[in-house]
Amino acid sequence: MPESQSLAKKVFTKMTEKDRFSRWMGIELLDTAEGYCKLQMTVRKEMLNGFGITHGGVTFSFADSAFAFASNSYGRLSVSLHASMTYNKPTKPGDILVAEAKKVSLGNKTATFDVNVSNCQSKEIVAIFRGTVYRTSEFILDKQE
Amino acid sequence: MPESQSLAKKVFTKMTEKDRFSRWMGIELLDTAEGYCKLQMTVRKEMLNGFGITHGGVTFSFADSAFAFASNSYGRLSVSLHASMTYNKPTKPGDILVAEAKKVSLGNKTATFDVNVSNCQSKEIVAIFRGTVYRTSEFILDKQE
Amino acid sequence: MPESQSLAKKVFTKMTEKDRFSRWMGIELLDTAEGYCKLQMTVRKEMLNGFGITHGGVTFSFADSAFAFASNSYGRLSVSLHASMTYNKPTKPGDILVAEAKKVSLGNKTATFDVNVSNCQSKEIVAIFRGTVYRTSEFILDKQE
Amino acid sequence: MPESQSLAKKVFTKMTEKDRFSRWMGIELLDTAEGYCKLQMTVRKEMLNGFGITHGGVTFSFADSAFAFASNSYGRLSVSLHASMTYNKPTKPGDILVAEAKKVSLGNKTATFDVNVSNCQSKEIVAIFRGTVYRTSEFILDKQE
Repeated sequence: MPESQSLAKKVFTKMTEKDRFSRWMGIELLDTAEGYCKLQMTVRKEMLNGFGITHGGVTFSFADSAFAFASNSYGRLSVSLHASMTYNKPTKPGDILVAEAKKVSLGNKTATFDVNVSNCQSKEIVAIFRGTVYRTSEFILDKQE
Repeated sequence: MPESQSLAKKVFTKMTEKDRFSRWMGIELLDTAEGYCKLQMTVRKEMLNGFGITHGGVTFSFADSAFAFASNSYGRLSVSLHASMTYNKPTKPGDILVAEAKKVSLGNKTATFDVNVSNCQSKEIVAIFRGTVYRTSEFILDKQE
Repeated sequence: MPESQSLAKKVFTKMTEKDRFSRWMGIELLDTAEGYCKLQMTVRKEMLNGFGITHGGVTFSFADSAFAFASNSYGRLSVSLHASMTYNKPTKPGDILVAEAKKVSLGNKTATFDVNVSNCQSKEIVAIFRGTVYRTSEFILDKQE
Repeated sequence: MPESQSLAKKVFTKMTEKDRFSRWMGIELLDTAEGYCKLQMTVRKEMLNGFGITHGGVTFSFADSAFAFASNSYGRLSVSLHASMTYNKPTKPGDILVAEAKKVSLGNKTATFDVNVSNCQSKEIVAIFRGTVYRTSEFILDKQE
């Protein structure tokens, strides 16, 4: 149903066509809307660090993907300037993680988003992410898309 | 030459035995010492995002690995509390990246490290990372190691 | 009414007795509770930077005070490890600002809080702050307090 | 010697004319150049928090002023997007602090600077700051300045 599909959904589809690293992570879209994105993934053994828990970079990457989809959902190509991550709890193989990205502020040149990463089973927030993008004047979709 | 090997090197070896995500990234050790670590990796197609450039999470993960090795190089198990990343330049498949982690401050409970990620070919800094660990009282190596 | 007073309120009273910089800022308490603090202040001319708007450090300081009261509200002396600030909108003399600090995560050793600073008149969020404390084992109040 | 004066010095002079909060802090310029600024100040009793040490916001503000002068030193009006602070050591009344701001990266739209705050007496770094500005297309000085 291409006509009724939201801009956010179309942007997500176009971005994920080529996003090979998000595919490697095995992300699944739960929901997206203007300024919003909710993703799910399952921790696998290839994602572990030297202490047998999920590598901090994987948790960050998962949050960063949700941030990218949310910040680009308005249709303007947006590039990450800065991001920060606070870690609360470790996760392990088999854990199902959810990343929920929400707009905090939206300006003409920059925008900021918060992403909470939580563990589906324990319902706990395992990490919190905050990122700022520069909003270019380029559009992601062609006119006919 | 196990006897003459530095503590930092032993910790690196022990940590990488199990660090499956660093292995996926293809990191190679260039140098390590107390509070210091320098790594290299090559960007591959599986590391790209939806815009055909290196996923921000991969660059972060690479810096995060250097941070983990540097912060654990003193032998005390150290866990990441917070990390932030500022992005300067995109990178693409085939680019050889170097991450250099240096101690900024070392306290009894916490320590902070800076990691610069640069592009070997262009000599430019592509991203800068700053992270803080909590230093537990647990040791990484067993006595005989 | 010392008996019925909450711990958070007692901690606030004790901390502000000596907090000369918060006094200089002219902060007023709107509300406080466990892990929570809401403050108000009015921008004055002495708080401006070289461009005639509120100095970024003043806005940060205001948020940082709310963060300090919220993170110490549990009664354990807590010291700031890290804080970050994202600026959305400038403010000017006469603007009434509100800082609202909320717990994001509370661990045994560390805790993280978000502080939104908003402009009372325009209802806009002017800056967002996120900070992490180290929770010492020292208590702020004496037993009889 | 107005003619031989550097652009960075002229910008500093113009910005400090109106910067009432930097004046309140009692900052003194030690050195400035393109992308660089070194300031000094002495901690006073009005700068203390509820625990009798320097309020984190004052240390941040001092670093933030050095950041503002360094980032505007190229002549283009630059506004702070994001800043973060890691605290290492407390300071107290009478301590002489030095903030040294250095360019980390300079792009057309954004630029990032690191500021180290150190204690002159103990030679220790007490806090580290990292900030990113948006570089507007407006100039700070009029043509004849």
